[in-house]
Amino acid sequence: MKDFTSLAPVSRKISDSTVRRLSLYLRFLEEFEHEGVATVSSRQLASQGATTAAQVRKDLSLFGSFGKRGRGYEVADLARKLKAILGLGRRWRVALIGAGRIGSALAEYGDFRERGFDIVAVFDSDPAKVGRRLAGLTVVAERDMERVLADTPVDIAIVAVPVEAAQAVVDRAAAAGVHGFLNFAPTQLHAPEGIALRDVNMSMELEALAYSLSQDADA
Amino acid sequence: MKDFTSLAPVSRKISDSTVRRLSLYLRFLEEFEHEGVATVSSRQLASQGATTAAQVRKDLSLFGSFGKRGRGYEVADLARKLKAILGLGRRWRVALIGAGRIGSALAEYGDFRERGFDIVAVFDSDPAKVGRRLAGLTVVAERDMERVLADTPVDIAIVAVPVEAAQAVVDRAAAAGVHGFLNFAPTQLHAPEGIALRDVNMSMELEALAYSLSQDADA
Repeated sequence: MKDFTSLAPVSRKISDSTVRRLSLYLRFLEEFEHEGVATVSSRQLASQGATTAAQVRKDLSLFGSFGKRGRGYEVADLARKLKAILGLGRRWRVALIGAGRIGSALAEYGDFRERGFDIVAVFDSDPAKVGRRLAGLTVVAERDMERVLADTPVDIAIVAVPVEAAQAVVDRAAAAGVHGFLNFAPTQLHAPEGIALRDVNMSMELEALAYSLSQDADA
Repeated sequence: MKDFTSLAPVSRKISDSTVRRLSLYLRFLEEFEHEGVATVSSRQLASQGATTAAQVRKDLSLFGSFGKRGRGYEVADLARKLKAILGLGRRWRVALIGAGRIGSALAEYGDFRERGFDIVAVFDSDPAKVGRRLAGLTVVAERDMERVLADTPVDIAIVAVPVEAAQAVVDRAAAAGVHGFLNFAPTQLHAPEGIALRDVNMSMELEALAYSLSQDADA
């Protein structure tokens, strides 16, 4: 167990939903900056992010109070601080495991690079895909993953392989030094000890919508 | 405002994270059913879903107590009830708006159909894509969306268009009778009144991972 009481506020573990809102605030701040806006109020940030001004102030106060009463937040300064808090003050090296339809679409997804994530290696187990070019990279045989990751270390792997192959590639890549995983295989994976893993389950998102629509129909 | 106090427990609004866990339990139950397992304990469901037996019992008690002490839950019965609760006792008609890389990959995504979601219409604004075949359907010009949705009503639309086009297609499709949206454009959209909207922001998922990894590095 970590002793949180001894940590500075910036290092305190914050909830997933707070991280998500901070990501959103950062996006809005970057838009404001792009438009040449120098200061914003918590109310302006809140309306963009579909939350309340009080929530914005609460979220940002977790990291020290950046706003000035009556003047709001300085856009460039707050953007810079949020970037540092979110770990986006650097670029991240990403491997893509699985170059099928979803994987290929993700490889070409421009927003990743724009947000600081560079895909630097692509793996697939299908001999027909190995050697092909994808997003400027050559697809490498999945069986060579450990060798390639030893030469080309990555921080994060995006997993876009079939359900039955997903856990094994996570375990192998984690053993080869990958610390974070974004899983698109529609299954619940077990993160090895000390490894961060997030699932993007697109069917479950549709199911959550279906649940909302069913509730509306019942009401 | 709805008066929730007058609603039966089944209709009570439950949190997003509970809906997500129920979706997971349903998947595990279907796997158990497939393997011919007749009863499961809350502990078994918990270990599959990386949660606790107490959480499983609490989640399921929201909808009446289905388990029998010492015998656990009947797999087929609980699966059927969860399906009904989640609104998955029927099939859902889905339109795909945007047939680019991400949209095309989603159109061919087998898990949607397996989970009860049928893509029945595909729209794109690019004349080069209109008329092409995608997942057994012909891509229709986005400008004809209202006319097509009048003939082919859908419940849910998947939005996979560029950021700058996303809000407008949501507003148009909502006006044309679509009640739920799953947005893949990397921006925060405003849901029209009475409309359910969920964002799948893949860059923000990577950012949340980056945040976790930064915290680990600091610790």
